[in-house]
Amino acid sequence: MPLDNAPEGKRKFNVVGTRPLRPDGIDKVTGRAKFGADASAPGQLVGRILRSPHAHAIIRKIDTSKAEKLPGVKAVITRDDFPDHTGGSGGLYDTLCNVMAREKAFYEGHAVAAVAATSASIARQALKLIKVDYEVLPHVTDVDEAMKPGAPLLHKDMFTDGVDPKPKKPSNIARRFEFGHGDVEAGFKKADIIVERSFKTEAAHQGYIEPHAALASMGPDGSAELWCCTQGHYMVRDVCSQLLGIDIARLRVTQSEIGGGFGGKTTVFIEPVALALARKANRPVKVVMTREEVFKASGPTASTSIDIKIGVTKDGLITAADGVFRYQGGPFQGCSPAEFGAMSAFAQFHLDNVRAVAYDVVCNRPKTISYRAPGAPMANFAVESVIEELAHKLGMEPIDFRIKNAAREGTKSSYGPVYGPIGLGATLEAAKNHPHFKAPLGPNQGRGMAAGFWFNFGGQSCVTLNIPVDGSITVSVGSPDIGGSRAAMCMMVAEEMGIPYDHVRAIIADTSALGYNDVTDGSRTTFATGMACILAARDAIKKLCARAAATWGIPEDAVKWENGYAKPAGPNAGDFAPLSLKEIAEASPGTGGPIAGHHEFSADGAGVSFATHICDVEVDPETGRSSIVRYTVIQDAGKAVHPSYVEGQFQGGAVQGIGWALNEEYIYGKDGRLQNAGFLDYRIPVCSDLPMIDTQILEIPNPGHPYGVRGVGETSIVPPLAAIANAVANATGVRFTQIPLSPPRVLKGIEEAKKAGGRKAA
Amino acid sequence: MPLDNAPEGKRKFNVVGTRPLRPDGIDKVTGRAKFGADASAPGQLVGRILRSPHAHAIIRKIDTSKAEKLPGVKAVITRDDFPDHTGGSGGLYDTLCNVMAREKAFYEGHAVAAVAATSASIARQALKLIKVDYEVLPHVTDVDEAMKPGAPLLHKDMFTDGVDPKPKKPSNIARRFEFGHGDVEAGFKKADIIVERSFKTEAAHQGYIEPHAALASMGPDGSAELWCCTQGHYMVRDVCSQLLGIDIARLRVTQSEIGGGFGGKTTVFIEPVALALARKANRPVKVVMTREEVFKASGPTASTSIDIKIGVTKDGLITAADGVFRYQGGPFQGCSPAEFGAMSAFAQFHLDNVRAVAYDVVCNRPKTISYRAPGAPMANFAVESVIEELAHKLGMEPIDFRIKNAAREGTKSSYGPVYGPIGLGATLEAAKNHPHFKAPLGPNQGRGMAAGFWFNFGGQSCVTLNIPVDGSITVSVGSPDIGGSRAAMCMMVAEEMGIPYDHVRAIIADTSALGYNDVTDGSRTTFATGMACILAARDAIKKLCARAAATWGIPEDAVKWENGYAKPAGPNAGDFAPLSLKEIAEASPGTGGPIAGHHEFSADGAGVSFATHICDVEVDPETGRSSIVRYTVIQDAGKAVHPSYVEGQFQGGAVQGIGWALNEEYIYGKDGRLQNAGFLDYRIPVCSDLPMIDTQILEIPNPGHPYGVRGVGETSIVPPLAAIANAVANATGVRFTQIPLSPPRVLKGIEEAKKAGGRKAA
Repeated sequence: MPLDNAPEGKRKFNVVGTRPLRPDGIDKVTGRAKFGADASAPGQLVGRILRSPHAHAIIRKIDTSKAEKLPGVKAVITRDDFPDHTGGSGGLYDTLCNVMAREKAFYEGHAVAAVAATSASIARQALKLIKVDYEVLPHVTDVDEAMKPGAPLLHKDMFTDGVDPKPKKPSNIARRFEFGHGDVEAGFKKADIIVERSFKTEAAHQGYIEPHAALASMGPDGSAELWCCTQGHYMVRDVCSQLLGIDIARLRVTQSEIGGGFGGKTTVFIEPVALALARKANRPVKVVMTREEVFKASGPTASTSIDIKIGVTKDGLITAADGVFRYQGGPFQGCSPAEFGAMSAFAQFHLDNVRAVAYDVVCNRPKTISYRAPGAPMANFAVESVIEELAHKLGMEPIDFRIKNAAREGTKSSYGPVYGPIGLGATLEAAKNHPHFKAPLGPNQGRGMAAGFWFNFGGQSCVTLNIPVDGSITVSVGSPDIGGSRAAMCMMVAEEMGIPYDHVRAIIADTSALGYNDVTDGSRTTFATGMACILAARDAIKKLCARAAATWGIPEDAVKWENGYAKPAGPNAGDFAPLSLKEIAEASPGTGGPIAGHHEFSADGAGVSFATHICDVEVDPETGRSSIVRYTVIQDAGKAVHPSYVEGQFQGGAVQGIGWALNEEYIYGKDGRLQNAGFLDYRIPVCSDLPMIDTQILEIPNPGHPYGVRGVGETSIVPPLAAIANAVANATGVRFTQIPLSPPRVLKGIEEAKKAGGRKAA
Repeated sequence: MPLDNAPEGKRKFNVVGTRPLRPDGIDKVTGRAKFGADASAPGQLVGRILRSPHAHAIIRKIDTSKAEKLPGVKAVITRDDFPDHTGGSGGLYDTLCNVMAREKAFYEGHAVAAVAATSASIARQALKLIKVDYEVLPHVTDVDEAMKPGAPLLHKDMFTDGVDPKPKKPSNIARRFEFGHGDVEAGFKKADIIVERSFKTEAAHQGYIEPHAALASMGPDGSAELWCCTQGHYMVRDVCSQLLGIDIARLRVTQSEIGGGFGGKTTVFIEPVALALARKANRPVKVVMTREEVFKASGPTASTSIDIKIGVTKDGLITAADGVFRYQGGPFQGCSPAEFGAMSAFAQFHLDNVRAVAYDVVCNRPKTISYRAPGAPMANFAVESVIEELAHKLGMEPIDFRIKNAAREGTKSSYGPVYGPIGLGATLEAAKNHPHFKAPLGPNQGRGMAAGFWFNFGGQSCVTLNIPVDGSITVSVGSPDIGGSRAAMCMMVAEEMGIPYDHVRAIIADTSALGYNDVTDGSRTTFATGMACILAARDAIKKLCARAAATWGIPEDAVKWENGYAKPAGPNAGDFAPLSLKEIAEASPGTGGPIAGHHEFSADGAGVSFATHICDVEVDPETGRSSIVRYTVIQDAGKAVHPSYVEGQFQGGAVQGIGWALNEEYIYGKDGRLQNAGFLDYRIPVCSDLPMIDTQILEIPNPGHPYGVRGVGETSIVPPLAAIANAVANATGVRFTQIPLSPPRVLKGIEEAKKAGGRKAA
């Protein structure tokens, strides 16, 4: 059965590219949407978690006897209730250790025990009755301090030091990575100008509005149900079942509506605890984090320390680029995004000589987890700050310098692969031609720019598409909708089937309904799950054509599908009146039963994505406060399935980057305790802090997707840190090498520069 | 890929036929199971329904203005909120009229308005503020009265009278059916003995413990979620979406655990009302019926009036059988099971001359719906009572008389088809050889028997089977588990895959996950959905073998599946070590992604089922109370997948039949109002009323199913009415022609017989 599949990039779309109403909008604004904490079960208990007050301590003993005796307490659990089913090492073991502390508490907020009780007040009271005997140890929270000889060591068996392949002494360095090609030293020898600088960035939290919440029910036979707020309920199912030692099929996980994730809901925290409490209490248990718990005990992103050295010829050609990237990832190895930072740092350039060395470092901080384009914004901040400085030194327009050295189709990327068709050059040219770029600036204002990169991923997705007798369509996907994917899925199915968008409804299925779906992250969902939707639709079309063929008594391959109709084709063309989707669906009970389309696969071919951001900042010289006065995002979407959502992703990424650049940071006291675990003291941008973020979508098709789709969710958070730092440098004459550019830091920089008599680095 | 598919009936089973623990048992006994009323949603309202106090009345006007003004009332709906999307006639229109009365209230309890309010007390108060202006009409509740000329007419446009093809006057007869073959009049001429009797049965309720409950959420765009207790959530979805005028795909229905259905939850009552309230209030609404509402406004079974005439030769051969079956089905046409009654009445006999005429009659009673083997028990009561009487007149053992005239393979059934291999003769022979049959009887005790029949159905079923990386299996089925089907599905999948039962978990999927599934009724689920499980497993096995083939680099058809392993076969046999399900699953992310099996179909080939019941009754001559002292069910299961569940079905059907035979009945006053709408006055049997029901499973394979499965759920309620009436007749010497055989009726019969000086009919 031939499909009307026009060649890449030339296909004409009917639904894709339009802007229908979002399917979740009404539910969300009327309060009908069910978020994590909205679930309930008959007889449910309140679960609460006892957390370490110490940044680093051996847990000698936990005495739960008094708590257990408190009336209304139905279960108390500790590390003893989590026997190790993981083999005692590796990422899953670290997850186990993070979910409930074992030998040591590794950070303030680390879970050490939990209770399930008939009310919240009894649960709180019970927590106070649990006696934990701690042996407090010295701690370290700064990545540079952690790497120094003599730093407090988190693990006795961590032996990487980054140089010696078999170090004799343990360290806090978990892993070392190196990427690049060419001869960096030789490259620097060819350079006329070299800029070398060191940068630091603080940890930021994803700042999702909805705290983690889970409702668990588990029987003594291991059969369990879990309702939770997550970016990947299949991941939750697999991880929890492995931690709890049950068959994966025993656990059914349903994903609630999600009040933000941004990477922070791609692992488990409270979910295994809720299940273990439910198993012990033999009753359903609901655990909801407080905001303070979210800050202290979920997974913010890494803090970093980065050195960048770039050399150029007088005519503006980069001869070598080198970087060292130190990322702390909390107390367990492999959690920091050091690898992605090093891989993405120089990805926007065409370089003959490039090297990026990364260190994954452990500290007494919460176990980090992904935050939108994990690792890339910090590296980009460092690199694109140096690029701007180099352009100034060269006397070149920074944008021309970037265009001259931009990666293009055929470039061997800094992390290995050779690029296919990419949109970096197009975004830079579009930026140069954008009205924003030439608009006049006011007093105390500066303009900055930066270009950024993100890989985008594919991965496993499964889709089932069912056609009831009225010819409407239900699409079941297993990818939580964190950014409008339901609309995109419906649009791609409608496009493929040749029917209106309104006749398709997308549902996020629970884990029993579909095969494994990777977490909604890596900007993979519209690409990979979308492709599964298209392929499931084609599977359904094949079956629809077969029914029509049987009805007409002609071969299946003599039927084609066109605009929602099965039509006789080839020698049979015109022999029968076309049958509509609705007609075939209506007849289906008598022609073989229900018609469905399925597709399970692991998607390859995700297309890399680039963006160029332009930012105008006004810095108040008296307070050091920076205000964003204009901001433009120009990004390649491959193909924008629902342009409004794409624009929303562009804007959302920029806004999160603005917050990170200007104010957001984890502030630790000398005691290793977090001092600003709340939205009053951890300052995320609100509407009044922001201008309207302008966007421009470019469409350079990804050859790896039938419609040319690339991911769009992450790239937009990569350039803001550098773009803003560059704008502030241009507004103040001071080059800041540390973010956030909070008013005290900027004021201090301005004042020091004044004393020093001009432009300097702070 | 060849499957190890041994010839019918010779296959050796590893899992099928064993008795593993039921998967829903623990949840049900610990209270974790979520039934209809256990659902909740944020901001939900309480919905309540105003019902007609009159058996028959024109609704002139409904004034809701006062109710609407009551603080806390968020929506009031009437017929005006249900515009007709059905076309104004047919079954769907009748459902609409039943869900919310339109021109007329047709029975006491008929819904006329509904409210949604913030609390139950406000909702109750609001109902009192709704003013309905009724014009009360004469009513009729008895089926014979309803058929008389001059009876109050329910509809002006109902013109069947059963004889004249174009009657001039309207009547309460909705439809007439006729089945049979041969020449009945000629047959009676050959008879030596003829018995002709009239019987009456009263309406019985299915008596499920869980009242109907529904939680609905619906947005102004028509997107809706419904949680409810039903035997068929796909049916609920399709019916509700059609009644509410939305695309079927807009409505997602999740089935709760079910606290009994027995056919009574195969249609909608409160579900469209909850949805309409939710749409109007723009908030979720929960509606839960009271027990009184369940009795008055759900769907009991028909009351009947039946005439039977059977003629035999002296040597015990039936020459002709004739019957007239009048079933009232409430106020709408086509609701009574008259057709099934007439079809099943003589199905257990090999007859040359047979006729069954049925009338579907409307009355001012609630719209009937299925009750386990709908229509058959009443017809069987009448026919098997006459059979017993004939045997006595012939001086033959009733069992020998039945064996002599029993239907067998090749018999043209009384309703048309020719039987394939059937188990009736085997159940009769087994009964004759059963110790119960020869056990001595005590004083005032009598033994009765009866043989019964049920069709069993196939229909549409869809199954998806997913295999996580640990090789455990989730089976998603769309058939609500009302009698242990989850266990049966897991067993058939485990059997087919060659893995232990414990590694498979069955989930009842919501309507978005699968294609349409017919209601769990007609004893179709273990047969049809079970077959879909087997075929979905074979689909998965095909994919597993393909992965193994790709791993080995050999053709797909050179791999066979055996006992949970892919093995190289044919010329490649022995070339590679077999790969287990778990090994292939573990590797799946890298070999193409998740592995699933799917099957959607409409199943044919359901096998008819027969049972013979033996019953001992002791009748207290002073009170007329009948006690069941011993009861044995012998039934053909085709193949008993989980014998304990099969025995449970045998026992459950017998017990419901015992209740119906002895005590259960709808008692109407002259005002047309139900007088016993509660379990105190409507007397269902409790444990202390019952002996242990003995069972014997026979296995005569159904050639239409890969494992030989027939349905087992319904046949067991068919013989009890007759078996008990025959036992009471043998205990008392009085032939009762009306059920229930409640103490007053039996006492009256005994006393009248005493006065008349011996055996008579009452």
